[in-house]
Amino acid sequence: MRPNGILETILYTNELDQAVWFYHEFLGLKLIREPSELAASFRVDQDHVLLIFDPTVSDKPGRPVPSHGARGPGHIAFRIDPEHYDAWIRRMGEFGIAAEQEIEWSTHTDPGRSIYMRDPTGNSVELITADIWRG
Amino acid sequence: MRPNGILETILYTNELDQAVWFYHEFLGLKLIREPSELAASFRVDQDHVLLIFDPTVSDKPGRPVPSHGARGPGHIAFRIDPEHYDAWIRRMGEFGIAAEQEIEWSTHTDPGRSIYMRDPTGNSVELITADIWRG
Repeated sequence: MRPNGILETILYTNELDQAVWFYHEFLGLKLIREPSELAASFRVDQDHVLLIFDPTVSDKPGRPVPSHGARGPGHIAFRIDPEHYDAWIRRMGEFGIAAEQEIEWSTHTDPGRSIYMRDPTGNSVELITADIWRG
Repeated sequence: MRPNGILETILYTNELDQAVWFYHEFLGLKLIREPSELAASFRVDQDHVLLIFDPTVSDKPGRPVPSHGARGPGHIAFRIDPEHYDAWIRRMGEFGIAAEQEIEWSTHTDPGRSIYMRDPTGNSVELITADIWRG
């Protein structure tokens, strides 16, 4: 017995408007509902959502669900099509988003490339063309 | 153009041994490789991994990849089979893991149940039987 998958992946930011700009406008994730002062919710694929919380709101006790709220730069890696890699680089330029680092994972079973950037809050966001954990 | 999905979901802990106990022994996620002082890596399903980092190591500058490392309780929700819900409750009891809260999402399009607990570091871990974000 084990979980079937992850339904909700979470990041934190104190600037939800800027998170919407980055994850919706730039990355193209669909907004599930209008953002609140608590969170912005995005559909990533059929089975997964990305929730971005303001930790100063989500960590308050007495919410209808258990409280949580981390501070400091988190990390997430999104899978992208290898043939879209260069288009993502161009899109970053159009949005004024700097590449922090690029890596070629050529030593892995499933070779691929990653490009790293920061969302407006400083979370480390990676776009990767392969599942480098397989093998 | 948008990402195809999330490859890496991240949580943080200062106690990686306890994270292995919780996510591998209790939840049943397969360890991808032997944990290091930096991180423990788990296969969640065919397309997704869960990486748990020690933020005091992962936030050091000069690593081969961009640094990151959040502090404080994060959150994650795993999808489980509805017919396994009661078995998960029993398993929590066997492992001495307390239920923090249970919720019935009966008002949603895709009704389901959630049970919330804390991992040994205090991250809020939810097991949920339905995709309540669909609708």
